Amino acid sequence: MRNITEHNITEAVIARFAGCDDSRLKEIMSSLVTHLHAFVRETRITEAEWAKGIEFLTATGHITDDKRQEFILLSDTLGVSMLTVAMNHTKPPAATEATVFGPFHVEGAPVFENGADISGGAPGEPLFVNCTVRGLDGEPIAGAIVDTWQADDDGFYDVQVAGLEQHRARGTLRTDEAGRFWFQSVLPVAYPIPTDGPVGAMLVATGRHPWRPAHVHFLIRAPGYETLTTHVFRAGDPYLDSDTVFGVRASLLAEFVPHAAEAGRGRHHTLDFGFVLAPQKG
Amino acid sequence: MRNITEHNITEAVIARFAGCDDSRLKEIMSSLVTHLHAFVRETRITEAEWAKGIEFLTATGHITDDKRQEFILLSDTLGVSMLTVAMNHTKPPAATEATVFGPFHVEGAPVFENGADISGGAPGEPLFVNCTVRGLDGEPIAGAIVDTWQADDDGFYDVQVAGLEQHRARGTLRTDEAGRFWFQSVLPVAYPIPTDGPVGAMLVATGRHPWRPAHVHFLIRAPGYETLTTHVFRAGDPYLDSDTVFGVRASLLAEFVPHAAEAGRGRHHTLDFGFVLAPQKG
Ligand SMILES: [Fe+2]
Ligand SMILES: [Fe+2]
Repeated sequence: MRNITEHNITEAVIARFAGCDDSRLKEIMSSLVTHLHAFVRETRITEAEWAKGIEFLTATGHITDDKRQEFILLSDTLGVSMLTVAMNHTKPPAATEATVFGPFHVEGAPVFENGADISGGAPGEPLFVNCTVRGLDGEPIAGAIVDTWQADDDGFYDVQVAGLEQHRARGTLRTDEAGRFWFQSVLPVAYPIPTDGPVGAMLVATGRHPWRPAHVHFLIRAPGYETLTTHVFRAGDPYLDSDTVFGVRASLLAEFVPHAAEAGRGRHHTLDFGFVLAPQKG
Repeated sequence: MRNITEHNITEAVIARFAGCDDSRLKEIMSSLVTHLHAFVRETRITEAEWAKGIEFLTATGHITDDKRQEFILLSDTLGVSMLTVAMNHTKPPAATEATVFGPFHVEGAPVFENGADISGGAPGEPLFVNCTVRGLDGEPIAGAIVDTWQADDDGFYDVQVAGLEQHRARGTLRTDEAGRFWFQSVLPVAYPIPTDGPVGAMLVATGRHPWRPAHVHFLIRAPGYETLTTHVFRAGDPYLDSDTVFGVRASLLAEFVPHAAEAGRGRHHTLDFGFVLAPQKG
């Protein structure tokens, strides 16, 4: 301990966790230190570069508040969120795949009856969503709780619109006896993740674009089933092959079908999707 | 890209840096992603655990301000700061070794003449410091700029004392023609790093103590020489073998010699130390 060198310091730090009662925390901290040190050694990071890293983390913390989570954006853009999701949700092939949660979910969104217009005046062409929630054997899941949220025609979630107090284009629904839920919202468009913070600066500096292909988020919970956090992506979107948070899975693409104006409805789109939940593990 | 899995995502993220013009940044980001993903895979981190990590980083950002740098504390307590220092300052054996910078340096500390009392009223027994700054061949380095800072008898740096506006126990001096600098301050004591934030919580949760052995910080700059950031540690301190930031090096220990009250001086300590600067690289 009095002769710490570049070569023995990793061991010395890990030894310091010897007294940790929580064996899982000990495992996580030891692994974190090992890999963080390996990164520092591999890059032979300079003190000036490390200071820039500290500055970056500080700025990421300072821009984060109850409406903006820049660390989740960072985790998303470095693929860590999607890796964690993929690792934790190995599902039977027939079950709907999971994808990233993202930073824009809000607890306590308004509850709607099926058929409601949840757009709350968000700009965009009308979208009519018709979905089913079933189990692996095709059994309809009644009473599943569905949170949905999405960006509007300007590419913004309600929480990103300065001064907007009410919720828009988000809500909570319940499946009926046949496992169905349906609502009206607006057509989502591709949007850039917020670029006015440190994560945006990282994307610019590394020559990356900030775009996500158009999608609607769904969080579906039902007793006895594994909770599903996923998106439905709009087929044909130009960013499907370069989603800046690595969230696209081919099985989550769907047509958002355009319809000309017809009796009682102006120009609009429809989306039909069938979700399949895996049984709860354990 | 439409079939990202736990197994191919690291490659997919690294490929996204292909367009980065800055080859060093590209190297750093690619290595960071590789090692971060390896950590996530090795621990098979759960989504709940990762969410706790995001929360931890957020809290670390929120407690950080212009007087407190919790990310530096984190880097220090995980041994990353000391690893970076050790890697970047491989010096000739005769040169004084470097150690961690720490979070308590302040730009623009008051400038003092040699012999001044820099304690500014900080509590503690008087300490008289007498140092020399020389090159590898023993040549005295005149006009070197020396920043020094330290904790007081309560274990606090001035910036940690609520409501204190002036600097205490820190200052900037200059070496004379013989390469000497000297000043009066107070005897530093062992101190715990701040434990009221997320890093303190991490130390508690992992069964680690927060203590650093007593030391005085020095930052010494002179044209033609490598800048030296180091401490002098008090020999005999009980925490020399378990410094919570891994900063101790045997060569940086010195006696802080106690003296009984004598003509004109009450009970006090003296510290003599000879710094040796390596020539500037490159
Ligand atoms: Fe989204
Ligand atoms: Fe210190």
